[in-house]
Amino acid sequence: MKIISNPHELNDYVKNLNKTIGFIPTMGALHEGHISLIKEARKNNEFVVVSIFVNPTQFSKDEDLDKYPRKDEADKKICELSGVDVLFFPNANDIYTKDEVSLQAPNVRGYVLEGYTRPTHFNGVLTVVNKLLNIVNPTRAYFGKKDAQQLNLISLMVKQLFMNVEIVAVDTKRDSDGLALSSRNIYLSKDERKQALAIPTSLNLASSMISKGIKDTKEIKEKMLEHLKLLEVFYVEILDREFNQVKEVELGNSIILVEARVGETRLLDNIWL
Amino acid sequence: MKIISNPHELNDYVKNLNKTIGFIPTMGALHEGHISLIKEARKNNEFVVVSIFVNPTQFSKDEDLDKYPRKDEADKKICELSGVDVLFFPNANDIYTKDEVSLQAPNVRGYVLEGYTRPTHFNGVLTVVNKLLNIVNPTRAYFGKKDAQQLNLISLMVKQLFMNVEIVAVDTKRDSDGLALSSRNIYLSKDERKQALAIPTSLNLASSMISKGIKDTKEIKEKMLEHLKLLEVFYVEILDREFNQVKEVELGNSIILVEARVGETRLLDNIWL
Repeated sequence: MKIISNPHELNDYVKNLNKTIGFIPTMGALHEGHISLIKEARKNNEFVVVSIFVNPTQFSKDEDLDKYPRKDEADKKICELSGVDVLFFPNANDIYTKDEVSLQAPNVRGYVLEGYTRPTHFNGVLTVVNKLLNIVNPTRAYFGKKDAQQLNLISLMVKQLFMNVEIVAVDTKRDSDGLALSSRNIYLSKDERKQALAIPTSLNLASSMISKGIKDTKEIKEKMLEHLKLLEVFYVEILDREFNQVKEVELGNSIILVEARVGETRLLDNIWL
Repeated sequence: MKIISNPHELNDYVKNLNKTIGFIPTMGALHEGHISLIKEARKNNEFVVVSIFVNPTQFSKDEDLDKYPRKDEADKKICELSGVDVLFFPNANDIYTKDEVSLQAPNVRGYVLEGYTRPTHFNGVLTVVNKLLNIVNPTRAYFGKKDAQQLNLISLMVKQLFMNVEIVAVDTKRDSDGLALSSRNIYLSKDERKQALAIPTSLNLASSMISKGIKDTKEIKEKMLEHLKLLEVFYVEILDREFNQVKEVELGNSIILVEARVGETRLLDNIWL
């Protein structure tokens, strides 16, 4: 596995490859969720690039940039063992200069849900993903469904800006207790972890209501909120795949999303129906 | 010459070319300035694409979108005679949908000079140029030096977002009376046209001061403003090529820029020293 930190060196390298490239942009602290993205990329592309870059512009001043988990050496090993061809590992000043052109999230879809409590977050996400896609120039780029709004906005960006890449959505990986894998899970104490399980079980509850024929989103949301009452819930939403609010669940076109804080840790989860 | 209006059709078409592509994005109403860009592209690329698209997002509500000059049939003829291979002629709804991801000009360089009086202008310019570059995927894209700030911001965008294209700057074309060619010149009455000549002659004045050894930008600007006193001047600036203000002209690294209104018509001009 080759490790490259200079964006121009990587760009020159991939330009001469003449292979299909699968790309997985990450912020490191890799877990089984990331590995499943790498495996998916490995299956359908001749060449696999992973980037590790904790993107400062998607954190606001009062957020956890400095304490975001970093485990560089383990991450390198994981990439190597997963069959990654190139690991892109830039520094912030390889990616950003001063007084920059940036990406601006859509006025509606960028400022609801996670964008409502973190209004500059998705501008930072879109800007860095735009840069990374231009540097790596992949055939396909892989994103987890767990960050559903991020996935939705990146897909919008690629479509609306006519970027030459296919976005592939990969199913959420869960621990044996049902909690969706996230680099932030390591912040949870034992007790908090137990409390956090209300998130996936609230989604299971919704799922079983729907399988019993209940389609009314208001009714389902109320039951979920009742189930989540011990957590600080930011939102419970039932949307169509374009992120519009809907009154009734429509199988094959719905997402149920939860964001809640457990202790100091924000957790996201969702199911696609 | 092939005429294509669908962005996806064009994107598919160029993907299979395997040729160097020179691209000239325009808003139509083509004149000798545009033709010189096409010639430059023709010289150094195997394939030449011109786009004609009057981009709505770079006009504010009180600006001249509706009366922006359009002469589609003449433009097609000009492209054909200039050896253009593909003319891209999309409609607004081929390029834009609702609730879009967009480009945001840099906080400083996007909001001075023309960006000061037109604060949303460069966001619109960068957004459409980003889309067009992704659709056409050219080897080189050609822009006139007359729109120096636009050229500067597009170059910044390409560099900062790591876009895979070379930006080529082409010298301004002038009419025999010295006025820089612009699609907006047709708005000028005979009298206004005469008044407008103060713009290029103010630049000549600056140029001759500099050739006499005067380097002080304050002194040069004062003389230029005196020369331009019958016009409504938006700005006279002497900047380095990165658009920073400078106290002394430095040959090989300076630009002198003027924007002024003559009647109802905004005119831009500049010289690169």
